[in-house]
This record gives sequence, structure tokens and C-alpha cells, in this order.
Amino acid sequence: MNHPGEKKQEITYVTKPALPPLEEFTALLQKVWDSRLLTNGGPMHKEFERALAEFLGVKYVSLFCNGMIALQIGLQALKITGEVITTPFSFAATTHAIYWNNCTPVFCDIKPDYTIDPAKIESLISPRTTAILPVHVYGRPCDHEAIQKIADLYGLKVFYDAAHAFAVRQNDVSVLNCGDLSMLSFHATKVFNTFEGGALITDNPKLKTRIDFLKNFGFAGETTVVAPGSNGKMNEFQAALGLLQLKHIDSYIAERKRIDAIYREELSGIEGLFFEGDIPGTTSNYAYFPILIDQKSYGMSRDDVYEKFRTNNIYVRRYFYPLISTFPCYRELPSASSRNLPVASKVAGQILCLPIYPDLDHGIVRGICASLKRRFS
Amino acid sequence: MNHPGEKKQEITYVTKPALPPLEEFTALLQKVWDSRLLTNGGPMHKEFERALAEFLGVKYVSLFCNGMIALQIGLQALKITGEVITTPFSFAATTHAIYWNNCTPVFCDIKPDYTIDPAKIESLISPRTTAILPVHVYGRPCDHEAIQKIADLYGLKVFYDAAHAFAVRQNDVSVLNCGDLSMLSFHATKVFNTFEGGALITDNPKLKTRIDFLKNFGFAGETTVVAPGSNGKMNEFQAALGLLQLKHIDSYIAERKRIDAIYREELSGIEGLFFEGDIPGTTSNYAYFPILIDQKSYGMSRDDVYEKFRTNNIYVRRYFYPLISTFPCYRELPSASSRNLPVASKVAGQILCLPIYPDLDHGIVRGICASLKRRFS
Repeated sequence: MNHPGEKKQEITYVTKPALPPLEEFTALLQKVWDSRLLTNGGPMHKEFERALAEFLGVKYVSLFCNGMIALQIGLQALKITGEVITTPFSFAATTHAIYWNNCTPVFCDIKPDYTIDPAKIESLISPRTTAILPVHVYGRPCDHEAIQKIADLYGLKVFYDAAHAFAVRQNDVSVLNCGDLSMLSFHATKVFNTFEGGALITDNPKLKTRIDFLKNFGFAGETTVVAPGSNGKMNEFQAALGLLQLKHIDSYIAERKRIDAIYREELSGIEGLFFEGDIPGTTSNYAYFPILIDQKSYGMSRDDVYEKFRTNNIYVRRYFYPLISTFPCYRELPSASSRNLPVASKVAGQILCLPIYPDLDHGIVRGICASLKRRFS
Repeated sequence: MNHPGEKKQEITYVTKPALPPLEEFTALLQKVWDSRLLTNGGPMHKEFERALAEFLGVKYVSLFCNGMIALQIGLQALKITGEVITTPFSFAATTHAIYWNNCTPVFCDIKPDYTIDPAKIESLISPRTTAILPVHVYGRPCDHEAIQKIADLYGLKVFYDAAHAFAVRQNDVSVLNCGDLSMLSFHATKVFNTFEGGALITDNPKLKTRIDFLKNFGFAGETTVVAPGSNGKMNEFQAALGLLQLKHIDSYIAERKRIDAIYREELSGIEGLFFEGDIPGTTSNYAYFPILIDQKSYGMSRDDVYEKFRTNNIYVRRYFYPLISTFPCYRELPSASSRNLPVASKVAGQILCLPIYPDLDHGIVRGICASLKRRFS
């Protein structure tokens, strides 16, 4: 119940999906309605795969219904078995995809910049290791040269969880070109969305073909099934929306960049509040604005800050907390011990992602910064 | 190239998806655009789950991005391990879901009515058997009373692949109420479509809750992951379309029934061409019109008939051929031997599904029947 004079404040979420004007979209939907080709690689799907590869500057794109199924099928396509070295500082999907492929995840610690620490990978390699599954967390590129060096030395595959890394480039080359395979997510919470959606990216034409079989139950023709695949197909609605989103993505990212700049300016120099700097040579997508709260020097814990924001209808997120390695389904693995993961454990206890999305009101951004500066006093 | 006077005949596919008027749909999409809630159990999803349960006459519905992921998560939710007795006369998804749950499929033969033969289940039970995964093929209900009796005797779970059985009722009760769990598919080729889509149906509230956790990566809250789930979420576009399709489904099925009646009338009494009769007490959805071609008495093989139709731009389907048990990934299983599967093997060599969909021209249907009658002479 609202009392007289009380102002009902709307909730600000950590993200809000960007959508093109509905009129633009219904024009494309009309084509789908006319063709009545709704899925299984229809005309929108073909066109979006082509346009997306061009936009991203990559060779082959295979579209998926979502990023999780893309990860699951990607591991299957690469014929990964045994143990997979990965990061516990990610979304649950990263490790779950390993589980669904009947492999064992081996957790490796991260660097303070949130990405997997290549210096700690080698000590985790066993005779059963077949692959490394790193994550470009928050769109921050992994140290892919160091990772590739280890992979080449030990004959391992590298599959990047690039769910956050849409349009991220280093020295004008897409980070999606790293490793053997990369996965993108187009979930509603991502920089680029098709409601739900995802993709696998490779420069290997045979791998692309195999992925396309596997995402359609393994069918390589009307009567040939080459492996027990799954259904990862993106439908024509998602593909049509994706085509249209491509026309707007540059402006979405430009809007995000403005908000990122405000945060950087307003939040710099606050004792006990840290954030990573820009990475030289990297074109960011400004997907997230993560900060670290050091309880001792800031004077409040991360969870206190989180709760204070929620009380004020600002729904910041503890993203990623808890670590995947602490989930009951993984915590008994030897590599899941927090002694093995000191940096990741510390970061998970301090991390907080602030709201950032194209049409987020700049006044709200400044209000968030002001609250953090005065420590909610 | 078309020569002068040559009439280009359009292809008739075995099915063509029904869609509501686009104007009706854009009105619902406007709501999604306004809310910007695109997935993760938004308002359309909630409303569609409720409306669908009511329409089908079932207790709980959990919506999915597609039927395959629903099957995969359904087996996980039931905690199925070891061996699962299933039918080889189905779409690849049925057995693939068992594979993804790290269980072994055990193939059981079918009855001449296409559904699993309960009389042959018992001899396939081993100490490792935990479940039966039958299929209501073409929407024809399995002998669920006999199956349940065996399941109860041996303490097995029963999970129905009901991909074809949307709205099918027996003595006015939905067949989706059989067993512990049922899976529906809303793929473009199905009687009821949401482009891609699916659902799990149960009357067990705890199972419904567990399924809903598992289809969202196992999250039972912001920081609790109860199991390594996957992403099976249906998005708001699919749910909005589903809501609208419910208003039209009765007329879609009525149109199908008219075509079914033409086939039954025109094709009866042709030597060497067989089809199953109506099942007393069953309300059908007229999803398919399968016929069997006996080469000896019909005078042509099924494959000859198939090719003849294709030459005439009638894309009938050999559905289901080949048997799943013959796929390279399963054929070495002891139960995959064709000696174990005489009826299924025979049916797979004779089966042909004729075109049936709401706005299929009745003239084309009669033309198909005429071709079959005169044996394409």
C-alpha cells in the first residue's frame, strides 16, 4: 500500500534487454508467416549465420537455441573425454556442459582480472586431461596466447566459453577466433539477445559440419545418424530477431560505453572499492560493470552493499557467487578445494555487478555511484 | 528452367505448420516488448503453463525450449540410472535422451499397432533396469495399463514420450496422465507448435518443482544449485504463440480429421496397403496418416512408392525408418539385434506417412489416394 506522498520507486535491474522497434520486427515475422518455415535451418537461420559471421569477423557460425546446449554439443563435437580444466568463476553452464558430456571438471584458479590463470593450468594436467574450457569473463579476453602454448605442448583442445564476449576484439581481431571453438550466448541478459539463443564459432569447416549434424540429433541426411546428438536448433523467430538486432548492436554498445565511462569516473579513488582498468588494444562490449568490495577498507561487506542496494530497489548482482566449485554436485572434487582456488574464492566474496544496459537512466547511474561514495550513509 | 506451357507443381510436404493470424500475435508480442521480460518464466510463460494444463486436463505442465531437452531433463529429474527399456520405432530423440543421461537403452519390440509390446518387456528386465520409456507413436496410446502393471511389479519408473500425443484422450481422460511423467513436443511438424517447444507433464508437485530447477541449470534460488541441470527454458515468444495456438487448436484438429476421413475412405480395400483402424474410446489428434506397403501383395516396395511420390512433388516420409536400433551409435547393443525386433523391423520397412495438415487441399489428398489405388500406373 502506498501512503500519501510516498513515491513508489521502480526497480532497477542489473540489466534490461534491448529490442528493436516492434514494427521493424513484424515485417520480418510476416516473411516467416508467409514461408511457414519455422525452424530446421530456414531462410532466416541461413541469412543470420552468414550476417553474423561477417559482423563478428569469424569464419563459421552455428546457431543454437541457447548457449548451454551450444556448450554441450561443442564438447561432444570435439570428442572431449576424461578431464577438462576449467574455471570455477563463471556461470553454472560452463561446468554443467562438462558433466553432461560425462567428463570430470578440474577447477583452476583465476587471475585478479577474473580470467583463468595460465600459470596454474600445467599443475592440473593428468593423463586423462583432454581439453581446457576457459571463460572470457565479463567479456575480458583470457590470456589466450599462454593458454594455447600449454594446449599445444600437451596436445589439448581449447574451447572458449565466450558467452560474454560478443563483438569483443583485440587488435581488431575477434577473440572468438581463439582456440578450437568458442561459444556465444544470446540470452536476454546479454549484450546481444534473441530472447534465448547461442552459437558456436569455428574456423574449421569439418567441425562446423559436425556441429550442425549434432545440433539436429546427429542427422547427416534423412536416414543417417552419425552420433547421439541433441536438439540445439535455433528457430526462425530467434534468427529473424538476431538479424534485426545486428542493425542496432553498435548503438547498444555505444550507450553501454557511456554508462561505463560514468562509473569509471565517479567510482575511482573510493577506498576499498576496486575495478579493473581498460585492457590496451581491446575493443570492449561493456557487457558488465563488476566491482570488488573489500570489507576491511571499504567499511562494509559486499553482502551489506548488496542488501542496501536491494532495499533501495537497485538489484545489483553477486555475479559470480558462489563459485561453481562450491555447488554440492562438484564440491567433493579434489580440485574444488578452496585451498586450490585462493584468488577465485576471494573474488567471489567481493564481487558485485552494477546495472548497465543501453537505456539505463544516467541519473540512476550517478545515484548508484553517490550511494557507494557515501557508503549508504 | 520452366519451358513454355510447363506447369510448375508446388511441393506438398508431409506436414505444414498451422499459425494464427499474425495480427493476433503481434498484439501479444507488444506486451512482451513493453515488459521486456523475454524469458526465465515471464508472464506469458506462467499464463501458458496454466492455460495448457487446463486445456489438456492435466495437473502440472513445465514448458521447455524443445522436446529433446524435456526428455533429457525428465530422465534426470526421475534420477534414472542403469538400463532403460524403450522402443526402437520412434524418432532419434527418444533414445538420445537415454544416452545423455549416461544410461543404456534396451530395445523392446513393438506390436503391429506401432506401440511397445508389453508382452516382451519382462524378458528384457535386468538388475540394472530402472525405467520404461514407451512412445505413444503417431498419437496412438500405448497399452499403458499393462505397462504400469509390469512397472509396479518390478518397481520401475514409466516416462512416456508423448511427442505425438497432444490432446489425445482415452475415455475422456488425457493420455498424458499415464505413468510418472510425459513429454510433449511443440516442434513445427507437430499438431500444436510453438516453432520449437516442448513440455513435461506430471501430477506430482515435487517432481514439477525439481524439473523447473533442472531446466534452469539446477538453480533453486539465487545462490543454490541442486544438481547439474541444463537450459531447457521456453522463452516468452514461444509461450505467447502457444497461448494463441490454444485458441485455434480445435479447428486445426477438426481440419485434420476431415483429411483423415478421406484417406480412410479412399484407401480402404487396396490390396497390400494397410492402415490401423480407429481405437475405440480414443479421441485422436490426427497427427499422422501412416500406411504400410507390403511389397509382395501391393506389387511395389515402400521405397518405390516413396520415390514415385517424390517424383510427383509429394514429399511423403518413411517415418520411422531406419529403426533407432540400427544407428551406428546403438547397433552393437545386444537388444539392437533385428532378431529381437521382428515386428519393428518389418514395420520400418513398410511404413510411409502421407501428408496431413489443416489447410492441405482435399484435391491433393484425393490425388494421393488415386495414385496409390492405380499403383502410379
